[in-house]
Formats: sequence, C-alpha cells, structure tokens
Amino acid sequence: MQLSSATHMLSAARAEAERLGVVVCVSIVDAAAYPVAFLRMDGLALGCIDVCNKKAKTAALFHMDSADFALVACPGGGAYSLEQTNGGLTSFGGGLTIRDGSGGVIGGIGVSGASTEDDIAIARVALAAFS
Amino acid sequence: MQLSSATHMLSAARAEAERLGVVVCVSIVDAAAYPVAFLRMDGLALGCIDVCNKKAKTAALFHMDSADFALVACPGGGAYSLEQTNGGLTSFGGGLTIRDGSGGVIGGIGVSGASTEDDIAIARVALAAFS
Amino acid sequence: MQLSSATHMLSAARAEAERLGVVVCVSIVDAAAYPVAFLRMDGLALGCIDVCNKKAKTAALFHMDSADFALVACPGGGAYSLEQTNGGLTSFGGGLTIRDGSGGVIGGIGVSGASTEDDIAIARVALAAFS
Amino acid sequence: MQLSSATHMLSAARAEAERLGVVVCVSIVDAAAYPVAFLRMDGLALGCIDVCNKKAKTAALFHMDSADFALVACPGGGAYSLEQTNGGLTSFGGGLTIRDGSGGVIGGIGVSGASTEDDIAIARVALAAFS
Repeated sequence: MQLSSATHMLSAARAEAERLGVVVCVSIVDAAAYPVAFLRMDGLALGCIDVCNKKAKTAALFHMDSADFALVACPGGGAYSLEQTNGGLTSFGGGLTIRDGSGGVIGGIGVSGASTEDDIAIARVALAAFS
Repeated sequence: MQLSSATHMLSAARAEAERLGVVVCVSIVDAAAYPVAFLRMDGLALGCIDVCNKKAKTAALFHMDSADFALVACPGGGAYSLEQTNGGLTSFGGGLTIRDGSGGVIGGIGVSGASTEDDIAIARVALAAFS
Repeated sequence: MQLSSATHMLSAARAEAERLGVVVCVSIVDAAAYPVAFLRMDGLALGCIDVCNKKAKTAALFHMDSADFALVACPGGGAYSLEQTNGGLTSFGGGLTIRDGSGGVIGGIGVSGASTEDDIAIARVALAAFS
Repeated sequence: MQLSSATHMLSAARAEAERLGVVVCVSIVDAAAYPVAFLRMDGLALGCIDVCNKKAKTAALFHMDSADFALVACPGGGAYSLEQTNGGLTSFGGGLTIRDGSGGVIGGIGVSGASTEDDIAIARVALAAFS
C-alpha cells in the first residue's frame, strides 16, 4: 500500500463526505494493519477515531469487509468472540478490503463518523478512486 | 507437552490442510497455555494467528474443546462473559484439549484459517497423530 | 488543531524529508493527543510508526518538546518514570508542541524514521509552515 | 517470509542448541512482526518465550539486530524509551534481521534461553542456513 495511493483515497473520501455534508475520519492501513495515512475532519466526535482504525484493521486482517465480518462475528453467529481478537475488531460496516490488480489484499480502509450507510458509501468512493 | 509431540502434530495438521486444499495456522500450547510450537502456512489472513492462539489457550485453560466452551460462554449461555477472561478466549470450534494416556490435560491445539468445520477436522487429525 | 493546518504541516514535513533524502512518518495530534492527520512514507521501518505517535503525544500532553522532556524523564533525571505514564511517552527528540498565536497549546507533531537530528529538523520545518 | 524457509531456520537453530548443550526457544516473524514459526525446547524457563518473541519483533520492526538496538535504546543512549514502544522491545542480543537476496527486510529471528552469547550464536547459525 503506497502512500501516494493512500493520500489519493483520503482526498476522495474527504470530498465525498463534504458532498454528503457529514464529518468523518478515514484510516488507510497496509495488509498487516499498520497505518499508512489518516485524517480527521474538524468537529468529529473523538470516539470515532478508534472505530475507523478498527474497521480498517478488520478488513485488512481478515480479507473481508467489516459488514461481512459482522455476519459471523456476533452473538449467534458462527464465530462469536472473533470480534474480540487482534486487539478488538469491528462488527459493522465501514471497513473495506483494498486489493491490487490481481486480487491480492494490500490493505484496508475504514471510515467512521457519519451513519453506517454513509460511512460505507464514502469508503466505496475512496476505494473506487484507487482502482 | 513435549516438543517432539508438538512438531509431530504440526506436521500432521499441515499435511491434512494441504490435502483439503486450505491454508491455516496451528498453535500447540502446554497445560498453562504457554506456546510449544507454531506454524503459519503461506498466504494466510494475518488475523487468524491470534485466533488459533486463543483457541489453543481456551482448550488448555478450561479443559474443554472450544466448540463446547462456546455453548456456555456466550450471550444467553450459562457463563456469559467467561469468553472475555484470561486475556480473551474463543467461543467457536477449532481448539481441542490435548490429554495424556491417563486423561490428564497436558495442553491444547488451535487451528484457524479455513472454515470452522475444516479447522476442527484438521485439529482432530493432528490430535489423532499424537495419541 | 484544524485538519487544514495539519495537512499543510504534513506536506511541509514530507517535502523536507524528500529534500534530505530520508524516509519518515509524521503524526499530528490535538491538545488531547487524539490523532488529526498522519502519513508514512514508502519503505519506512514499521517500528517508527508507534514512535512518531508517542513523540506527538508527549509534546501535546506535557506542553514541551520531547527532547526537553528527555532531560527529566529518564534514569537520573528529576522525574524518572514519567516516560512510562500515559501509555508510554518518548524521551528523545522529534516531538514538538504546536501552539496558537497566543501561545496556547493546540497539539503536537511527531516525526520518526531518520536520525534524531533529522527528525527534529523535519518537525521544525513543518511547525514553521504552520506558524 | 515463507514457512519453508522458517522451518528450515528453526531446524538449524535447534540442532545448534543441541550441539551446544543448551535449551532455547526460537521465533521467526515476518517483516511486520507477525509470527511465522516457533518452537520451544523441553525444559525451558517459561519467561524466555516472550523474550524471544520480542527479540524477533525488534529486529523486524527496526531493521537492526537487537544487540545494535541496545546501543541506543537504553538509559544514557540516544533514544532512551524507544525500547518501550511497539508493545515492548528487546535491548540485548539474540534478535537478528532476516533479509532477502537484495537486502530487503523480510523478517526477524529471536532466540532466548541460553546465555546471550549462545543465543546470538544460535540465531546466526539459523540465519546462515537461510541465506
């Protein structure tokens, strides 16, 4: 996950958040969940920072979007308690896996601060800007 | 839990994973949940490492397979929150208790990376190789 | 600490690092040490990420540059063990306090990856870009 | 860091420890400090396990052997408190950086359980087996 790609994704996410009239933070991590780039828009509730980081980590470490992860990593799901591994993960939407041209996982993006639907939409716009 | 037995189990687990065409990591711990041997197959999602360690720990520290542990350590179960003790445990299958000839617990094995069914199957093959 | 100022500082830090021919990561935090913006240049040793975060945190939470903090928070210093509070702080240079026009602390910047001298120089260039 | 290389290094380390008549544990991690393979010889003092893991992590995350890291990350060194970042690192010998043919860091190996000199010697034998 190169910095130039990550900053490009951050810019796209920020522009989409402004277009939607919402405030978010955005985290881009590499395939091992180490941070590459991050930004927080002015006025964000501070609790969202850890959330966007965990969304990005979930998508990178498990090779699946956090909304899909939520289907199994929850009470009653097939892998309840999975969400508490790796220092804490996120079992709702807003974290997307980033893949290279051949489908290999190279990182994750997490967005938090708006509604879950808007967080997901913003992350998708950012991911499309990368591809 | 001797190293020679642990490496024997790791080899059996790896061979079974290759036979099934899946990629997993395998952790063997002693009765106090300290690591004895570990391997991670190439290409595994990195989040599975902590999962296999916690599966092995769960089986060793509670003298029961993690699939059985899941029946009580979950919302609605008789011991909800038990899964959050000991630094985090695993409430789904893939962790098996290792016992000596007289039934005493000497360790645990955890497998993660494939479907829960395959993780369990691989752990059972490894355990059979030990017995 | 506004995002626009933080991204301006990140750009200045990155340009200075490129001019010096070094690779660093840069973290900007607010007065409460919550992240505002972050970037990691390609090829950085991954251990530096936590270091730059802790440098920024040290400067923000104690209202002093991490190089000054080091003079007291060390074995033999007047406040030995202070460096182990707040989840871990940094007792060497590369973290600078960010102040507004009237001298109030509004955040911290941390740089890590090059020599301590270069880390400090890069942080100073970024701070000058803010002022 | 491929599993086949890691298991080859573990075997070489174990053979050298047996030749020296000492008992150690050995940890191989990838460039992001995630475990690839691990073994603990029978009879080892349990506290050494965390030590060998931290030695391997130190070498991988800072691209330097833990004995060199010790020269700066210590009281009176140029980067005192660095040893407390990244969840705890090791400021003495026994951790070596693993590089590929072109010099890029691909992981780290840590050995603990014998004297520091023997730990270092064993790690070097394992590294030579890889190269």
